Amino acid sequence: MNFADYFPVWNKLTPPQQHKISSCLFDRTIKKGTIIHHGSMDCTGLLFLKTGRLRAYILSAEGREITIYRLFDRDMCLFSASCMLNSIQFEIIIQAEKDTDLWIIPPEAYKQLMEESAPVANYTNEVMATRFSEVMWLIEQIMWRSLDKRIAGFLLDEAAIEAADKLKITHETIANHLGTHREVVTRMLRYFQNEGMVSLSRGIVEITDKERLEILQHD
Amino acid sequence: MNFADYFPVWNKLTPPQQHKISSCLFDRTIKKGTIIHHGSMDCTGLLFLKTGRLRAYILSAEGREITIYRLFDRDMCLFSASCMLNSIQFEIIIQAEKDTDLWIIPPEAYKQLMEESAPVANYTNEVMATRFSEVMWLIEQIMWRSLDKRIAGFLLDEAAIEAADKLKITHETIANHLGTHREVVTRMLRYFQNEGMVSLSRGIVEITDKERLEILQHD
Repeated sequence: MNFADYFPVWNKLTPPQQHKISSCLFDRTIKKGTIIHHGSMDCTGLLFLKTGRLRAYILSAEGREITIYRLFDRDMCLFSASCMLNSIQFEIIIQAEKDTDLWIIPPEAYKQLMEESAPVANYTNEVMATRFSEVMWLIEQIMWRSLDKRIAGFLLDEAAIEAADKLKITHETIANHLGTHREVVTRMLRYFQNEGMVSLSRGIVEITDKERLEILQHD
Repeated sequence: MNFADYFPVWNKLTPPQQHKISSCLFDRTIKKGTIIHHGSMDCTGLLFLKTGRLRAYILSAEGREITIYRLFDRDMCLFSASCMLNSIQFEIIIQAEKDTDLWIIPPEAYKQLMEESAPVANYTNEVMATRFSEVMWLIEQIMWRSLDKRIAGFLLDEAAIEAADKLKITHETIANHLGTHREVVTRMLRYFQNEGMVSLSRGIVEITDKERLEILQHD
Protein backbone atom coordinates (compact mmCIF):
# COMPACT_ATOMS: atom_id res chain seq x y z
CA MET A 1 0.00 0.00 0.00
CA ASN A 2 1.31 3.45 -0.72
CA PHE A 3 0.37 6.80 0.76
CA ALA A 4 -2.15 7.65 -1.99
CA ASP A 5 -4.37 4.84 -0.65
CA TYR A 6 -4.40 6.42 2.79
CA PHE A 7 -5.15 9.98 1.79
CA PRO A 8 -8.68 10.20 0.32
CA VAL A 9 -8.08 13.50 -1.49
CA TRP A 10 -4.78 12.46 -3.12
CA ASN A 11 -6.34 12.47 -6.59
CA LYS A 12 -7.54 16.02 -6.08
CA LEU A 13 -3.99 17.30 -5.67
CA THR A 14 -2.08 18.78 -8.61
CA PRO A 15 1.04 16.84 -9.70
CA PRO A 16 3.35 19.46 -8.06
CA GLN A 17 1.37 19.15 -4.81
CA GLN A 18 1.60 15.36 -4.97
CA HIS A 19 5.32 15.65 -5.57
CA LYS A 20 5.78 18.05 -2.66
CA ILE A 21 3.98 15.72 -0.24
CA SER A 22 5.79 12.63 -1.48
CA SER A 23 9.13 14.34 -0.99
CA CYS A 24 8.56 15.39 2.63
CA LEU A 25 6.55 12.38 3.80
CA PHE A 26 8.36 9.89 6.01
CA ASP A 27 7.40 6.76 7.86
CA ARG A 28 8.09 5.72 11.40
CA THR A 29 7.50 2.78 13.69
CA ILE A 30 6.44 3.64 17.22
CA LYS A 31 6.76 1.14 20.05
CA LYS A 32 3.75 0.41 22.22
CA GLY A 33 3.64 2.80 25.16
CA THR A 34 5.55 5.64 23.45
CA ILE A 35 4.12 9.12 23.86
CA ILE A 36 4.34 10.73 20.43
CA HIS A 37 2.70 14.05 21.15
CA HIS A 38 2.48 15.99 24.39
CA GLY A 39 0.40 19.15 24.44
CA SER A 40 -0.05 22.07 22.10
CA MET A 41 3.61 23.16 22.17
CA ASP A 42 4.52 19.94 20.48
CA CYS A 43 3.99 19.92 16.72
CA THR A 44 4.91 16.52 15.40
CA GLY A 45 2.95 16.70 12.15
CA LEU A 46 0.02 14.92 10.59
CA LEU A 47 0.01 11.22 11.37
CA PHE A 48 -1.54 8.62 9.06
CA LEU A 49 -1.87 5.20 10.68
CA LYS A 50 -0.87 2.20 8.59
CA THR A 51 -1.30 -0.31 11.39
CA GLY A 52 -1.47 -0.06 15.16
CA ARG A 53 -3.48 2.00 17.59
CA LEU A 54 -3.14 5.44 19.17
CA ARG A 55 -4.92 6.85 22.19
CA ALA A 56 -5.54 10.58 22.70
CA TYR A 57 -6.12 11.63 26.29
CA ILE A 58 -6.03 14.61 28.62
CA LEU A 59 -4.48 14.87 32.05
CA SER A 60 -5.66 16.72 35.15
CA ALA A 61 -3.28 18.72 37.36
CA GLU A 62 -3.37 15.73 39.75
CA GLY A 63 -2.40 13.29 37.02
CA ARG A 64 -5.82 11.75 36.36
CA GLU A 65 -6.38 10.75 32.74
CA ILE A 66 -9.38 10.41 30.48
CA THR A 67 -9.35 8.98 26.97
CA ILE A 68 -10.76 11.41 24.40
CA TYR A 69 -10.63 9.12 21.37
CA ARG A 70 -8.61 6.37 19.75
CA LEU A 71 -7.20 6.08 16.26
CA PHE A 72 -7.02 2.90 14.19
CA ASP A 73 -5.67 1.81 10.80
CA ARG A 74 -6.20 4.47 8.11
CA ASP A 75 -7.14 7.20 10.60
CA MET A 76 -5.50 10.60 10.37
CA CYS A 77 -4.31 12.28 13.56
CA LEU A 78 -4.84 16.00 13.26
CA PHE A 79 -4.10 17.31 16.73
CA SER A 80 -0.52 16.10 16.61
CA ALA A 81 -0.14 19.06 14.24
CA SER A 82 -2.00 21.50 16.48
CA CYS A 83 0.41 24.36 15.65
CA MET A 84 -1.20 24.30 12.19
CA LEU A 85 -4.47 25.68 13.55
CA ASN A 86 -4.25 28.85 15.64
CA SER A 87 -7.52 28.21 17.39
CA ILE A 88 -6.54 24.95 19.06
CA GLN A 89 -6.15 25.81 22.71
CA PHE A 90 -5.99 22.53 24.55
CA GLU A 91 -3.38 20.06 25.63
CA ILE A 92 -3.83 16.57 24.32
CA ILE A 93 -1.45 13.67 24.77
CA ILE A 94 -1.11 10.93 22.16
CA GLN A 95 0.30 7.57 23.01
CA ALA A 96 0.78 4.34 21.05
CA GLU A 97 -1.40 1.60 22.56
CA LYS A 98 0.17 -0.97 20.24
CA ASP A 99 3.28 -1.03 18.07
CA THR A 100 2.25 1.41 15.39
CA ASP A 101 3.43 2.11 11.84
CA LEU A 102 2.61 5.50 10.48
CA TRP A 103 3.37 8.15 7.91
CA ILE A 104 4.17 11.64 9.04
CA ILE A 105 3.70 14.83 7.03
CA PRO A 106 5.54 17.79 8.55
CA PRO A 107 3.10 20.47 9.78
CA GLU A 108 4.45 23.31 7.58
CA ALA A 109 4.05 21.23 4.40
CA TYR A 110 0.49 20.23 5.29
CA LYS A 111 -0.45 23.74 6.34
CA GLN A 112 0.75 25.12 3.02
CA LEU A 113 -1.16 22.42 1.14
CA MET A 114 -4.31 23.15 3.13
CA GLU A 115 -3.99 26.86 2.34
CA GLU A 116 -3.85 26.30 -1.39
CA SER A 117 -6.11 23.27 -1.78
CA ALA A 118 -9.81 23.49 -0.91
CA PRO A 119 -10.23 19.67 -1.09
CA VAL A 120 -7.46 19.21 1.50
CA ALA A 121 -8.93 21.92 3.74
CA ASN A 122 -12.39 20.34 3.48
CA TYR A 123 -11.02 16.87 4.17
CA THR A 124 -9.29 18.25 7.27
CA ASN A 125 -12.60 19.81 8.26
CA GLU A 126 -14.35 16.44 8.03
CA VAL A 127 -11.65 14.80 10.14
CA MET A 128 -12.06 17.50 12.78
CA ALA A 129 -15.85 17.11 12.68
CA THR A 130 -15.40 13.36 13.30
CA ARG A 131 -13.24 14.03 16.37
CA PHE A 132 -15.72 16.69 17.48
CA SER A 133 -18.51 14.11 17.32
CA GLU A 134 -16.44 11.70 19.42
CA VAL A 135 -15.82 14.38 22.01
CA MET A 136 -19.53 15.29 22.14
CA TRP A 137 -20.32 11.60 22.64
CA LEU A 138 -17.82 11.57 25.51
CA ILE A 139 -19.50 14.57 27.18
CA GLU A 140 -22.83 12.78 26.97
CA GLN A 141 -21.26 9.68 28.53
CA ILE A 142 -19.67 11.62 31.37
CA MET A 143 -22.76 13.71 32.06
CA TRP A 144 -25.65 11.34 31.69
CA ARG A 145 -24.42 7.79 32.11
CA SER A 146 -23.57 6.08 35.36
CA LEU A 147 -20.17 4.48 35.76
CA ASP A 148 -21.47 0.87 35.73
CA LYS A 149 -22.82 1.42 32.20
CA ARG A 150 -19.61 3.17 31.10
CA ILE A 151 -17.44 0.29 32.40
CA ALA A 152 -19.73 -2.28 30.75
CA GLY A 153 -19.52 -0.32 27.48
CA PHE A 154 -15.74 0.02 27.76
CA LEU A 155 -15.24 -3.75 28.31
CA LEU A 156 -17.48 -4.59 25.35
CA ASP A 157 -15.65 -2.09 23.11
CA GLU A 158 -12.28 -3.51 24.16
CA ALA A 159 -13.46 -7.06 23.47
CA ALA A 160 -14.57 -5.95 19.99
CA ILE A 161 -11.28 -4.11 19.28
CA GLU A 162 -9.13 -7.00 20.51
CA ALA A 163 -11.49 -9.67 19.12
CA ALA A 164 -11.15 -11.52 22.45
CA ASP A 165 -13.20 -11.93 25.61
CA LYS A 166 -10.14 -12.30 27.80
CA LEU A 167 -8.72 -8.80 28.16
CA LYS A 168 -5.20 -8.11 29.40
CA ILE A 169 -5.92 -4.87 31.18
CA THR A 170 -5.39 -3.51 34.68
CA HIS A 171 -8.01 -1.73 36.75
CA GLU A 172 -5.69 1.29 36.72
CA THR A 173 -5.78 1.38 32.90
CA ILE A 174 -9.58 1.16 32.82
CA ALA A 175 -9.72 4.02 35.34
CA ASN A 176 -7.38 6.08 33.12
CA HIS A 177 -9.58 5.56 30.10
CA LEU A 178 -12.72 6.58 31.95
CA GLY A 179 -11.34 9.43 34.04
CA THR A 180 -12.00 7.81 37.38
CA HIS A 181 -10.05 6.19 40.25
CA ARG A 182 -8.69 2.64 40.32
CA GLU A 183 -10.56 1.85 43.56
CA VAL A 184 -13.88 2.76 41.97
CA VAL A 185 -13.19 0.49 38.99
CA THR A 186 -12.10 -2.38 41.26
CA ARG A 187 -15.29 -2.09 43.29
CA MET A 188 -17.46 -2.14 40.19
CA LEU A 189 -15.59 -5.06 38.59
CA ARG A 190 -16.01 -7.09 41.79
CA TYR A 191 -19.72 -6.39 41.62
CA PHE A 192 -19.71 -7.53 37.95
CA GLN A 193 -17.83 -10.67 39.04
CA ASN A 194 -20.35 -11.42 41.81
CA GLU A 195 -23.09 -11.10 39.21
CA GLY A 196 -21.27 -13.57 36.94
CA MET A 197 -20.63 -11.07 34.15
CA VAL A 198 -16.81 -11.11 34.34
CA SER A 199 -14.10 -13.20 35.91
CA LEU A 200 -11.08 -11.41 37.40
CA SER A 201 -7.49 -12.52 37.78
CA ARG A 202 -4.19 -10.65 37.95
CA GLY A 203 -4.04 -8.21 35.03
CA ILE A 204 -6.96 -9.98 33.30
CA VAL A 205 -10.64 -9.19 32.97
CA GLU A 206 -12.51 -11.98 31.23
CA ILE A 207 -16.01 -11.35 29.98
CA THR A 208 -18.15 -14.37 30.95
CA ASP A 209 -21.64 -13.07 30.18
CA LYS A 210 -21.53 -10.68 27.24
CA GLU A 211 -25.29 -10.57 26.88
CA ARG A 212 -25.85 -9.27 30.41
CA LEU A 213 -23.11 -6.66 29.99
CA GLU A 214 -24.87 -5.51 26.83
CA ILE A 215 -28.19 -5.28 28.62
CA LEU A 216 -26.55 -3.34 31.45
CA GLN A 217 -24.84 -1.00 28.97
CA HIS A 218 -28.07 -0.06 27.21
CA ASP A 219 -30.32 -0.22 30.25
CA MET B 1 -21.94 47.68 9.15
CA ASN B 2 -22.32 45.37 6.23
CA PHE B 3 -21.67 41.65 5.92
CA ALA B 4 -18.10 42.06 4.61
CA ASP B 5 -17.10 43.38 8.05
CA TYR B 6 -18.38 40.20 9.70
CA PHE B 7 -16.78 37.68 7.40
CA PRO B 8 -12.98 37.79 7.79
CA VAL B 9 -12.26 36.09 4.45
CA TRP B 10 -14.60 38.27 2.38
CA ASN B 11 -11.67 39.91 0.57
CA LYS B 12 -10.35 36.53 -0.44
CA LEU B 13 -13.51 35.72 -2.41
CA THR B 14 -13.70 36.34 -6.13
CA PRO B 15 -16.26 38.95 -7.27
CA PRO B 16 -18.65 36.21 -8.52
CA GLN B 17 -18.37 34.45 -5.15
CA GLN B 18 -19.05 37.73 -3.32
CA HIS B 19 -22.02 38.32 -5.55
CA LYS B 20 -23.39 34.84 -4.96
CA ILE B 21 -23.18 35.21 -1.17
CA SER B 22 -24.68 38.71 -1.22
CA SER B 23 -27.61 37.48 -3.24
CA CYS B 24 -28.55 34.60 -0.94
CA LEU B 25 -27.71 36.21 2.41
CA PHE B 26 -30.64 37.36 4.52
CA ASP B 27 -31.05 38.84 7.95
CA ARG B 28 -33.35 37.92 10.74
CA THR B 29 -34.26 39.05 14.23
CA ILE B 30 -34.77 36.30 16.78
CA LYS B 31 -36.65 36.91 20.01
CA LYS B 32 -35.03 35.95 23.30
CA GLY B 33 -35.90 32.35 24.18
CA THR B 34 -36.44 31.16 20.59
CA ILE B 35 -34.87 27.85 19.65
CA ILE B 36 -33.33 28.38 16.23
CA HIS B 37 -31.74 25.00 15.69
CA HIS B 38 -32.71 21.61 17.08
CA GLY B 39 -30.46 18.66 16.35
CA SER B 40 -28.61 17.44 13.30
CA MET B 41 -31.76 16.98 11.16
CA ASP B 42 -32.25 20.72 11.27
CA CYS B 43 -30.12 22.64 8.79
CA THR B 44 -30.82 26.32 9.25
CA GLY B 45 -27.62 27.64 7.69
CA LEU B 46 -24.56 29.55 8.81
CA LEU B 47 -25.43 32.23 11.36
CA PHE B 48 -23.39 35.42 11.77
CA LEU B 49 -24.29 37.36 14.91
CA LYS B 50 -24.65 41.11 14.57
CA THR B 51 -25.86 41.64 18.12
CA GLY B 52 -27.35 39.40 20.77
CA ARG B 53 -26.36 36.11 22.31
CA LEU B 54 -26.89 32.43 21.46
CA ARG B 55 -26.45 29.40 23.66
CA ALA B 56 -25.60 25.93 22.31
CA TYR B 57 -26.53 23.05 24.57
CA ILE B 58 -27.22 19.34 24.63
CA LEU B 59 -30.07 17.50 26.28
CA SER B 60 -30.17 14.14 28.04
CA ALA B 61 -32.96 11.61 27.54
CA GLU B 62 -34.36 12.81 30.88
CA GLY B 63 -34.35 16.45 29.79
CA ARG B 64 -31.23 17.62 31.64
CA GLU B 65 -29.26 20.30 29.82
CA ILE B 66 -25.65 21.38 29.71
CA THR B 67 -24.32 24.45 27.93
CA ILE B 68 -21.62 23.62 25.40
CA TYR B 69 -20.71 27.16 24.39
CA ARG B 70 -22.16 30.61 23.80
CA LEU B 71 -21.90 32.91 20.82
CA PHE B 72 -21.59 36.67 20.95
CA ASP B 73 -21.43 39.60 18.50
CA ARG B 74 -19.41 38.74 15.38
CA ASP B 75 -19.30 35.01 16.12
CA MET B 76 -20.18 32.53 13.41
CA CYS B 77 -22.41 29.59 14.26
CA LEU B 78 -21.29 26.56 12.30
CA PHE B 79 -23.31 23.70 13.76
CA SER B 80 -26.61 25.28 12.75
CA ALA B 81 -25.47 24.11 9.28
CA SER B 82 -24.48 20.65 10.42
CA CYS B 83 -25.86 19.03 7.23
CA MET B 84 -22.91 20.70 5.49
CA LEU B 85 -20.44 18.38 7.18
CA ASN B 86 -21.10 14.66 6.89
CA SER B 87 -19.06 13.80 9.95
CA ILE B 88 -21.13 15.77 12.45
CA GLN B 89 -22.97 13.14 14.45
CA PHE B 90 -24.37 14.91 17.45
CA GLU B 91 -27.51 16.75 18.39
CA ILE B 92 -27.00 20.30 19.51
CA ILE B 93 -29.73 22.81 20.34
CA ILE B 94 -29.24 26.54 19.77
CA GLN B 95 -31.35 29.07 21.57
CA ALA B 96 -31.34 32.87 21.67
CA GLU B 97 -30.45 34.06 25.19
CA LYS B 98 -31.17 37.65 24.20
CA ASP B 99 -32.99 39.28 21.30
CA THR B 100 -30.54 38.54 18.50
CA ASP B 101 -29.92 40.06 15.06
CA LEU B 102 -28.13 37.83 12.63
CA TRP B 103 -27.30 37.10 9.03
CA ILE B 104 -28.03 33.69 7.60
CA ILE B 105 -26.27 32.04 4.68
CA PRO B 106 -28.17 29.00 3.36
CA PRO B 107 -26.17 25.78 3.88
CA GLU B 108 -26.00 24.79 0.18
CA ALA B 109 -24.52 28.16 -0.81
CA TYR B 110 -21.90 28.03 1.95
CA LYS B 111 -21.06 24.41 1.23
CA GLN B 112 -20.45 25.19 -2.42
CA LEU B 113 -18.31 28.19 -1.48
CA MET B 114 -16.29 26.09 0.95
CA GLU B 115 -15.71 23.46 -1.73
CA GLU B 116 -14.26 25.94 -4.19
CA SER B 117 -12.49 28.37 -1.84
CA ALA B 118 -9.59 27.20 0.30
CA PRO B 119 -9.67 30.43 2.40
CA VAL B 120 -13.34 29.82 3.29
CA ALA B 121 -12.66 26.15 4.11
CA ASN B 122 -9.68 27.14 6.29
CA TYR B 123 -11.67 29.87 8.04
CA THR B 124 -14.39 27.29 8.77
CA ASN B 125 -11.68 25.01 10.10
CA GLU B 126 -10.48 27.70 12.52
CA VAL B 127 -14.05 28.30 13.72
CA MET B 128 -14.48 24.58 14.35
CA ALA B 129 -11.13 24.44 16.17
CA THR B 130 -12.33 27.30 18.42
CA ARG B 131 -15.50 25.39 19.32
CA PHE B 132 -13.43 22.24 19.79
CA SER B 133 -11.25 24.09 22.30
CA GLU B 134 -14.34 25.26 24.17
CA VAL B 135 -15.66 21.72 24.33
CA MET B 136 -12.31 20.39 25.58
CA TRP B 137 -12.34 23.09 28.26
CA LEU B 138 -15.83 21.91 29.24
CA ILE B 139 -14.66 18.29 29.58
CA GLU B 140 -11.86 19.44 31.87
CA GLN B 141 -14.36 21.41 33.94
CA ILE B 142 -16.76 18.49 34.25
CA MET B 143 -14.03 15.95 34.98
CA TRP B 144 -11.64 17.74 37.26
CA ARG B 145 -13.41 20.66 38.93
CA SER B 146 -15.81 20.45 41.81
CA LEU B 147 -19.24 22.02 41.45
CA ASP B 148 -18.58 24.86 43.94
CA LYS B 149 -15.75 26.11 41.70
CA ARG B 150 -17.87 25.67 38.57
CA ILE B 151 -20.76 27.67 40.08
CA ALA B 152 -18.37 30.38 41.28
CA GLY B 153 -16.83 30.55 37.80
CA PHE B 154 -20.26 30.63 36.15
CA LEU B 155 -21.48 33.52 38.33
CA LEU B 156 -18.31 35.51 37.65
CA ASP B 157 -18.58 34.90 33.88
CA GLU B 158 -22.22 35.96 33.91
CA ALA B 159 -21.37 39.13 35.85
CA ALA B 160 -18.70 39.92 33.24
CA ILE B 161 -21.04 39.22 30.28
CA GLU B 162 -23.88 41.25 31.76
CA ALA B 163 -21.57 43.91 33.26
CA ALA B 164 -23.61 43.70 36.46
CA ASP B 165 -23.23 42.06 39.88
CA LYS B 166 -26.98 41.61 40.28
CA LEU B 167 -27.90 38.70 38.03
CA LYS B 168 -31.47 37.93 37.01
CA ILE B 169 -31.18 34.18 36.86
CA THR B 170 -32.99 31.25 38.41
CA HIS B 171 -31.34 28.28 40.11
CA GLU B 172 -32.94 26.11 37.44
CA THR B 173 -31.18 28.08 34.70
CA ILE B 174 -27.80 27.78 36.43
CA ALA B 175 -28.39 24.03 36.77
CA ASN B 176 -29.20 23.83 33.04
CA HIS B 177 -25.97 25.59 32.11
CA LEU B 178 -23.86 23.32 34.27
CA GLY B 179 -25.61 20.02 33.65
CA THR B 180 -26.73 19.45 37.21
CA HIS B 181 -29.95 19.54 39.27
CA ARG B 182 -31.68 22.62 40.64
CA GLU B 183 -31.59 21.30 44.21
CA VAL B 184 -27.81 20.95 44.07
CA VAL B 185 -27.43 24.53 42.84
CA THR B 186 -29.79 25.86 45.51
CA ARG B 187 -27.83 24.08 48.23
CA MET B 188 -24.52 25.50 46.98
CA LEU B 189 -25.89 29.05 46.58
CA ARG B 190 -27.22 28.97 50.15
CA TYR B 191 -23.76 27.97 51.30
CA PHE B 192 -22.32 30.89 49.26
CA GLN B 193 -24.91 33.18 50.89
CA ASN B 194 -24.02 31.99 54.40
CA GLU B 195 -20.39 32.75 53.58
CA GLY B 196 -21.37 36.26 52.45
CA MET B 197 -20.33 35.76 48.83
CA VAL B 198 -23.80 36.20 47.30
CA SER B 199 -27.20 37.47 48.33
CA LEU B 200 -30.27 35.58 47.09
CA SER B 201 -33.76 36.77 46.38
CA ARG B 202 -36.52 35.59 44.05
CA GLY B 203 -35.02 35.14 40.57
CA ILE B 204 -31.92 37.16 41.57
CA VAL B 205 -28.38 36.16 42.55
CA GLU B 206 -26.36 39.19 43.63
CA ILE B 207 -22.61 38.87 43.96
CA THR B 208 -21.58 40.56 47.20
CA ASP B 209 -17.97 39.43 47.51
CA LYS B 210 -16.42 39.03 44.06
CA GLU B 211 -12.91 38.63 45.41
CA ARG B 212 -13.79 35.58 47.49
CA LEU B 213 -15.65 33.99 44.59
CA GLU B 214 -12.54 34.50 42.48
CA ILE B 215 -10.35 32.89 45.12
CA LEU B 216 -12.79 29.99 45.37
CA GLN B 217 -12.87 29.59 41.58
CA HIS B 218 -9.09 29.32 41.26
CA ASP B 219 -8.48 27.52 44.52
